Amino acid sequence: MSALPWPPLRDALVGEEPYGAPQIDVPVQLNTNENPYGPSAAAAADIAEAVRGAALTLNRYPDREAHALRADLATYLNADGGQQLSEANVWAANGSNEVMLQLLQAFGGPGRVALSFAPTYSMYPEYARDSLTEWVVGHRESDFSLDLEAARRKVLEVQPAVVLLPSPNNPTGTALPPEAVAMLCEAAGNGIVVIDEAYGEFRREGVPSALEVLPRYRNLVVTRTMSKAFALAGARLGYLAAHPDVVDAVRVVRLPYHLSAVTQAAARAALRHAPELLGKVAELRAERDDTVAWLRAQGLEVADSDANFVLFGTFADRHAVWQQVLERGVLIRETGPDGWLRVSIGTPEEMTAFKSALVAVVEENR
Amino acid sequence: MSALPWPPLRDALVGEEPYGAPQIDVPVQLNTNENPYGPSAAAAADIAEAVRGAALTLNRYPDREAHALRADLATYLNADGGQQLSEANVWAANGSNEVMLQLLQAFGGPGRVALSFAPTYSMYPEYARDSLTEWVVGHRESDFSLDLEAARRKVLEVQPAVVLLPSPNNPTGTALPPEAVAMLCEAAGNGIVVIDEAYGEFRREGVPSALEVLPRYRNLVVTRTMSKAFALAGARLGYLAAHPDVVDAVRVVRLPYHLSAVTQAAARAALRHAPELLGKVAELRAERDDTVAWLRAQGLEVADSDANFVLFGTFADRHAVWQQVLERGVLIRETGPDGWLRVSIGTPEEMTAFKSALVAVVEENR
Repeated sequence: MSALPWPPLRDALVGEEPYGAPQIDVPVQLNTNENPYGPSAAAAADIAEAVRGAALTLNRYPDREAHALRADLATYLNADGGQQLSEANVWAANGSNEVMLQLLQAFGGPGRVALSFAPTYSMYPEYARDSLTEWVVGHRESDFSLDLEAARRKVLEVQPAVVLLPSPNNPTGTALPPEAVAMLCEAAGNGIVVIDEAYGEFRREGVPSALEVLPRYRNLVVTRTMSKAFALAGARLGYLAAHPDVVDAVRVVRLPYHLSAVTQAAARAALRHAPELLGKVAELRAERDDTVAWLRAQGLEVADSDANFVLFGTFADRHAVWQQVLERGVLIRETGPDGWLRVSIGTPEEMTAFKSALVAVVEENR
Repeated sequence: MSALPWPPLRDALVGEEPYGAPQIDVPVQLNTNENPYGPSAAAAADIAEAVRGAALTLNRYPDREAHALRADLATYLNADGGQQLSEANVWAANGSNEVMLQLLQAFGGPGRVALSFAPTYSMYPEYARDSLTEWVVGHRESDFSLDLEAARRKVLEVQPAVVLLPSPNNPTGTALPPEAVAMLCEAAGNGIVVIDEAYGEFRREGVPSALEVLPRYRNLVVTRTMSKAFALAGARLGYLAAHPDVVDAVRVVRLPYHLSAVTQAAARAALRHAPELLGKVAELRAERDDTVAWLRAQGLEVADSDANFVLFGTFADRHAVWQQVLERGVLIRETGPDGWLRVSIGTPEEMTAFKSALVAVVEENR
């Protein structure tokens, strides 16, 4: 073996940057798809009280299996498309990105393929890289939809161990049609099909959750997070629903006690406040639909969105537009295909600020 | 590629069990090296108050770099052997096992070797497995010490990317002599030498921390945890001190926002209560020394211990002894080389229960 470089990063990581959007302190933050509405004082107090209870025994390790939290999450999912899910169907971790990494650690690895369809979530290739899984990307159509027959052929050709498909897709906002999940699960054989519903609660009327067909496909995994609709990004709680065989497989690679007693207590308290915390979803969906319509009225191209963000464009120099909007105190995200920008849905005041900034920038560059 | 099995676990994981000691509900738990003393009501209330503050903005992602917490940890370390450490030297994650996994994700991988010396911590091979790093073990002497010259030769022979060495060692309690760290760091070239001081605060008078020589070796990493001496196992906060190049390398593989706002707030509040939370360390060290002496007085073999646990034996059928002690309401750990058992140091009452149970069991099996 040749001498190690300094620092001795493995070859695939040399020159890589830590993942993450620029964190810039400006008045209007519309770049990471956060929910603009924080917990009420009452909900925060309840979360704190739950933590106080847990804190008295913090000298002890947490429940390694997070039994009570997983049961609570199952109950929550059964009210949003879940079909009689129980604790055995649910797994939780520190954010859905830890859930995804665990899925690839269990089912990916050298000689195996993870497949997705671009443009899509930019963390996916990092999970593949960190689990030494080969990363293969098919493509979406020009309107960011998936050609299902082409996707099916890609699955049959590549034989992926894991398919990663967000619905709605990030950063485009595109939801999968109902028949897509069934078709892909059937094509994948024993390969795992992960439908990433991080933004699932924002889907439009009539758009189904993949949870509805979960009992039919043992290779289907639906992931969710409390970060978005649930307004709990700071608590880092992601989870999945799947056949118990999948949950048991993930348990093999999870680090012991990965989920702290504090996290478990805080998440359970937040779940008791679900009606309040989710209470702004309808408002955010309406604001999202208004934003799509407004952007189109400006003559821009806009992707249909089932999420709490909107992808719009196209700009010959999107970086310049992003920068000039930022200079007006509004931070949006430079992501997606070249020429496009993404804006998260904030409060009405934040969206007004965004619209003013964008109008001014477009005017200037005319 | 051949068809995937169900569930499609990668080959190396087939038949593997999730890591973890048996969780059995008995009155006296002396199996996972927890601190038997929980936070006071005042400390718990302060932790809760800190979480209440953080909870009001839980809709926002946490500080991705955990700046304030890392600065606080640096200050703490500077009072226990650290040499002018600052935030740039410190990295934190959900338990030191996440820290270790990140180190191996950054510096291990296919074609690289992680080296340790057995008997040692049984999670190490799992970090290697999950990061696809080749796992090589040298051996310790019959008294569990390290033959330094043999260890040096092993490092030169194997050229490890990462050396994992706990001091004190788990499950034997053995600390490294002062000259070991220097010798291994020099032998390792650009390879990383991780001195795992999870139990460092329990070391006996005159035993140094590897922190003291950190400024001399850019390839030295010292890991710590708040789980043990700090009595905060439930909060899952592990950390490392190292050259800033090492911290920057780990940032490449960390999942974004891996450390929740709740965890950061709770850990910072706990650090403000360090004198109280660490207040039982002297008592536990004394109890540990008494336990070693008592076990030796029973005619048993006992490893010298600088930790909050003691390895003792040997028993022709250690599983039977473990089981019979358990039947008397005392849970200890069946770990380490064949014939040995490990007991964590509990309260005086818990140690009395352990001693009574062990005497009765030894008597019965005479």
